[in-house]
This record gives sequence, structure tokens and C-alpha cells, in this order.
Amino acid sequence: MKEYLENVRKTVPLVHNITNYVTVNDVANALLACGGSPIMSDEAEDVEDITSICGGLNINIGTLHKTSIEGMFRAGRKAGELGHPVLLDPVGAGASALRTNTALGLMKELKLTVIRGNISEIKTLAAGTGTTKGVDADAADAVTEETLDQAVAFVKAFSKETGSIIAVTGAIDLVTDGEICYVIRNGRPEMGKITGTGCQLSGIMTAYVTANPEHPLEAAAAAVCVMGLAGEIGWSRMQEGDGNATYRNRIIDAIYHMTGEELEKGANYELR
Amino acid sequence: MKEYLENVRKTVPLVHNITNYVTVNDVANALLACGGSPIMSDEAEDVEDITSICGGLNINIGTLHKTSIEGMFRAGRKAGELGHPVLLDPVGAGASALRTNTALGLMKELKLTVIRGNISEIKTLAAGTGTTKGVDADAADAVTEETLDQAVAFVKAFSKETGSIIAVTGAIDLVTDGEICYVIRNGRPEMGKITGTGCQLSGIMTAYVTANPEHPLEAAAAAVCVMGLAGEIGWSRMQEGDGNATYRNRIIDAIYHMTGEELEKGANYELR
Amino acid sequence: MKEYLENVRKTVPLVHNITNYVTVNDVANALLACGGSPIMSDEAEDVEDITSICGGLNINIGTLHKTSIEGMFRAGRKAGELGHPVLLDPVGAGASALRTNTALGLMKELKLTVIRGNISEIKTLAAGTGTTKGVDADAADAVTEETLDQAVAFVKAFSKETGSIIAVTGAIDLVTDGEICYVIRNGRPEMGKITGTGCQLSGIMTAYVTANPEHPLEAAAAAVCVMGLAGEIGWSRMQEGDGNATYRNRIIDAIYHMTGEELEKGANYELR
Repeated sequence: MKEYLENVRKTVPLVHNITNYVTVNDVANALLACGGSPIMSDEAEDVEDITSICGGLNINIGTLHKTSIEGMFRAGRKAGELGHPVLLDPVGAGASALRTNTALGLMKELKLTVIRGNISEIKTLAAGTGTTKGVDADAADAVTEETLDQAVAFVKAFSKETGSIIAVTGAIDLVTDGEICYVIRNGRPEMGKITGTGCQLSGIMTAYVTANPEHPLEAAAAAVCVMGLAGEIGWSRMQEGDGNATYRNRIIDAIYHMTGEELEKGANYELR
Repeated sequence: MKEYLENVRKTVPLVHNITNYVTVNDVANALLACGGSPIMSDEAEDVEDITSICGGLNINIGTLHKTSIEGMFRAGRKAGELGHPVLLDPVGAGASALRTNTALGLMKELKLTVIRGNISEIKTLAAGTGTTKGVDADAADAVTEETLDQAVAFVKAFSKETGSIIAVTGAIDLVTDGEICYVIRNGRPEMGKITGTGCQLSGIMTAYVTANPEHPLEAAAAAVCVMGLAGEIGWSRMQEGDGNATYRNRIIDAIYHMTGEELEKGANYELR
Repeated sequence: MKEYLENVRKTVPLVHNITNYVTVNDVANALLACGGSPIMSDEAEDVEDITSICGGLNINIGTLHKTSIEGMFRAGRKAGELGHPVLLDPVGAGASALRTNTALGLMKELKLTVIRGNISEIKTLAAGTGTTKGVDADAADAVTEETLDQAVAFVKAFSKETGSIIAVTGAIDLVTDGEICYVIRNGRPEMGKITGTGCQLSGIMTAYVTANPEHPLEAAAAAVCVMGLAGEIGWSRMQEGDGNATYRNRIIDAIYHMTGEELEKGANYELR
């Protein structure tokens, strides 16, 4: 996985983010930490110019506004014309009709390189409808060792149907292009007590896919390993009294220092 | 106060936040730290669905937009129909006509379980008009040992008039349902040098009131003690050279680790 | 430079910020750290009231929305009527037509005390058009020891043309009123791996100019030295494994603790 990380550091991909205002600062710092360069713009009249100077586009619907929806479509179409990779993070799909419908509309209209979400969001998109508990996955949906075969089959089928790489993150992460599925077991459960680790991963994954245009599946899987491994490294540096705020910083710090060798050694995955 | 904290950790209340973009990330992490679960949504077409899957609603007018005002009313009415607790944080009421009038309009139209602000904001709402120095309380308004009797009488009367629990935070905090007033002396003056400790408290308080529906007054007071005590614990961990940025993290870390016993022991309050 | 810092701590200038949602929390905490007091408001109907209770106005176009553009003009005109200093941070001018044109429009319509940006942004404004690589300066534009004379002449001429203090920040910083140019060599290259150090500086600089109305040039230069020196002090506190997230906190912490003496001793500048 070494080379995918190194390509990001070498090429410093400029990533256009249309993202939510909750975790946007962490997304920017995580992108800088991994070796990319972030720019944020969601205004419909601004996005085409911005996307044109970037290498990839990250669309996150975490705090969806009617005014930014148009920006998502315009940026996505422009990115498509330019052949840029586009990632969709359907935050809260299933939690509201506006979110579900916007995500489905973006899937229909845009060429999405990757769709990355939790299992409940992805199931909602596959079903065309659904309900989720807010922005976290339903426990009933969780990918576990027991449900793994079924989950792998599901994401492969959804990837074939959509033509997008599907990345489902949770206790076990799945990344597939419909043929091969990376099953990844990096990360820590405590990452769920920090807002925005998923959003950060979407930003980083866009940088990885942008910097590795010949290997989008492998690059997307590498990004998942980077984030999970950073969660493990960050946790190992926690001291007495440190909680989720400090953990947030330590994870980004770990991304900042991660080397190709460290990733190679720490990435914990198998292919299915 | 032990049980109010433990009920939050046990029930993991999902809190819908319509809040400002300055401190929103800290509100989300503080909610996670205390044992709740945050979701943010302010788009008028999104808020009713989101509020419906949540347990409580936190409305904060810190960076008011005309487009989000409609979302506040729609979410608030829906929460009222569903019997969810609603908290209003009237940030900057008195600093602009738009803020004052929006806060007054929300008070008039919605059933507010709690109104939580600094003394200048609360005085503005009680008077129906006013001027404040930005988003901080005027020194002239401050609740001190000398003005305490008068302040307690004021908040009790305002609580009776509005039918809402009134929580005024500052050097001395007051939380009342019109009959009983908690006078709380936790916290540190240095918390005023961090943006958003008030916003964080509003998020946490919404989680506490949601998780303790039979005891909203006690739960609101417990949330104030949690925040103040976290400020004290966080401060005790400060090292040479640490300033307000690190203090911010240490406070959220302290919320994350706080136990019922710690709260019971550290809460510093009397009833009036 | 001592007195400019001390005047901020003494007078606690209230700064109205119309700024982007990426770095807004850091801007608020940096303003508190330096001794100022922040308030954020961008809604057109809110900004005139807010600016009226403040001492200075900081306009940053980092995530420009059509709805906030009107707020920028209305706040800027009101600040002009009241004789308040106004700072423009033209983030991403050159990266999109909307950003370039908005910045040029604000320059034309408002009396700007200071324009602070990176060299590519300032060159774009001087040319009336341009292209930049996202929100970072183009390497080709960089102010180096080799291009210094030319750069000083350029910023002096642009300052004379606009009637504004021009502050260009990068590896070498330039601050000029058209006659005198401060050439400042504080700071660390690693500050570029944190999002928002420029935005933070714009907030702090507005506080400095507001608190030192008789000496806007010197105050603006002092703010640049504060930020750069904080970057050096923060860096000296970095420990094994600390990355850009921790560095971000340490810089704000260093601003929080900085004394006049420390600034006097650490400020590294010459006059041209």
C-alpha cells in the first residue's frame, strides 16, 4: 500500500470539498496531514471554477442546504467533464427524505468514483429508501464476522449496479469494485466517540483516489487503512485523562507522520 | 446528581442541533463526550424529519441566517408535537434586532423546556428589548454574591412568566423552574477565554433534559455542574505553556471521563 | 512592538468577523487568545447592528456565499460610516471569478484599512484578474530573498494605489502603507500544513489595528510578528509524534501567553 500513500505526498492533490460545517475544519487538517491540499466551496456560482483547478471532488451531505445542493450537482457535472474522481459521502441518508433523495439524485446524475458511508446509509441507497438512527449506523445493520459473507456479497452487488467503488466503514470495513473486496480490520471503537472521522476519511480517500488514477480501488482501500491505523497509533499515545478531544488531535497527528512503511506494516486486510 | 449523568450514558439521547457554525464541532464532540449523540440540520426542508428521529432539540442563534430561522420554527413545532424537550440558547440577544426578535418569536411560538444564556441575554428577553456587548455578558449585569438575591428573584419570576426552566450561566450560575433555584459555583473564569463553552453546555443540557424527562430542572442543573466541574478538572491538567486551545480540549476530555461519583463529589451548589 | 500588544490586552477590542466556516472556530479562539473578543455574523439583516457594537470588521471570503456577499457590503459600509477599521482577506482571489470579482468589488466600494493575503491573491487584485492554485500561493509568485526588492516595490505601489495597508504573508512577510515596508522573517514553514493560520492572522490583525488607531501600520506589522513568533514558540513545544493538529493548538496557546517583552525580543523585522 506504500506507493498509494507516497503518490499522495508526491503529487499533493488539490481536493475540492463540498462538505458540512460540523467537521469541515478537521477534514481540511486531515487532508493537509495526509499530504493533500484542501479547498472548500459550495456556492453554485463558485464551484465550477474551483473544481476546475482541483484534481478531485469530495461531496458530503452532512449539513445539507437547498442552496448547496445545486452546487453539488454543478461541481459534480464539471468534475465529470474533466475526468476528475468524485466521491459521495451520503451522511444521514435514511435519516431524512431530503438527504436520501439528494444522495439518490447525485448517484443518478453524476459519475461517482466512490460512495463511502456507514452500512445503514449504503443500505438506504441500495434500497432507494430507508431509515437510519441519525448519522450513525444502526446496530442491527452492523457488519460483523457473522454477517461478513452476506455483507461482502451485498456491497459487491451494489458496486456492480452503480459502477462505483463502494466503501462501507464500521468495525469491519469493506471496499469493493464489484470484483474484489478489501475486508479491513484497522481502527478502534473509540473513533466513534469523535465527530467526523468518517468525513475526514472521505476527504483523505478523495486525495488518494486522485493521486492514484490507475488504481482507484487499491487507493480507496489504502485510505481506509491509513485512517484506521492512525486511530490505532493515536490511541497508543493517549495518556491518563485524555478523552475524545485529545484523541481527535492524535489521530490527525498520526496521519501527518505516517510513512509508507508504517502503512505497509500496519494495514490489516484480506481480499475476498 | 449521579443518576442524571448515568441516565445520559445509559440512554444515549440523540440531540438535534440547529446551531452556529463557530462552535458546532465542539458542540458535537461535547455531546459525544457526555454520552449523547449529535445530529446537525438547519435546512427548513430537512429539520422535521431529523427532529422526528431525535429525542431533544437544541436551538442556538449564534450565527443566525434568515434561511435557518424557518428551520428553527419548523423543528421547534415538530418537537412540540412529539413532546420532545426544546432548549433555546439566545446567543447575542440584545446585540442585534434580528437576534432579539428571533429569540422573542421562538419564545412566543414554541414550548421551550429551557432557555439558557448569559445574564445580559436573559435580561434582554425579559425586557423584550436590550443591548449587550456582543456575545458576552455586560459586566454591569453580572451575577455576584452582592446581587445574588435580586438575580434569583429575577430568574424565578422570568421562569414563572415563560413557563420555561431558566438557566443563567456566568461566574455564579442559576437554574430555576420558578420555585426552586439552583445556585451553582463550579467552573473557572478562564473558560470565558474559549469560544463556545456556553454552546457546548446548551448541547449537553439538551441531552441531560432528554435523558431525564421526569426531572428536567435537576437534569439542567446537573449539566451546568458537569460543564463547570469539567472546567475545573481540565484546568488542573494544564501544563506550562498550555493556553486556551489546549484548555478547550482538556475540558471536553474531562466531560468524556466524568463519572457519576465524580459529579456527585464535585458539584458545588445550593438551593434557594 | 510591545505597546501594540498591550493595547489589545488593555482595550479588548470587539471584532466583527464575516468569515468562512472552515477556520471560524480557530479565528474566534485566536482572537480570544490575543486579548480581543470575537463576534461572527454574516446575515445581511444582522450585520449592521453587530458592526455598530464592535470596534473593527474582518471580512474573509474563504467560503463565499451569494447571501453573505450582501452582508459584507452592508457591514463594510456601516463600519466606514462609523470610522471603524476594515480588513479584507481575499481568500482564493484568482481561484474563481466570484471570489476575484467580490474582492475587487469590496475594494472599490469600501474604505479598507488593510488588505491581507498571500502573494498570489494580492497579485490577482493588483492585476484585476488572475489565477491561483486554490487557497495557497503559487510557488512561482513566492517572495524570496532574490525577489524581495521587486516585491517590496510592488506592495508599496499597490498600497499607494489602493490607499490601504497591504500585508502579504508567506515565507517572508511584507506590511506596507506605501512609504515604509516592514519585512518580517518570523514563522515556520510547517504553519502551511495547518488550515487557517492566515485567517487567524486576519482576525488578530483586525484586533491590533482596532486597538491602535493611531498606528495602523505598526499594529498590522506587530500582528504579523505575533503570529509568526507564536508559530516558532509553538513549534519549540512540539513533542515526538505531534503533528499539525497539535501544532495548531500550540500556536494558539503561544498567542494566549505572549507578553509584550516576548514580542519585543522575538520580532524579527527590518524596515525598507
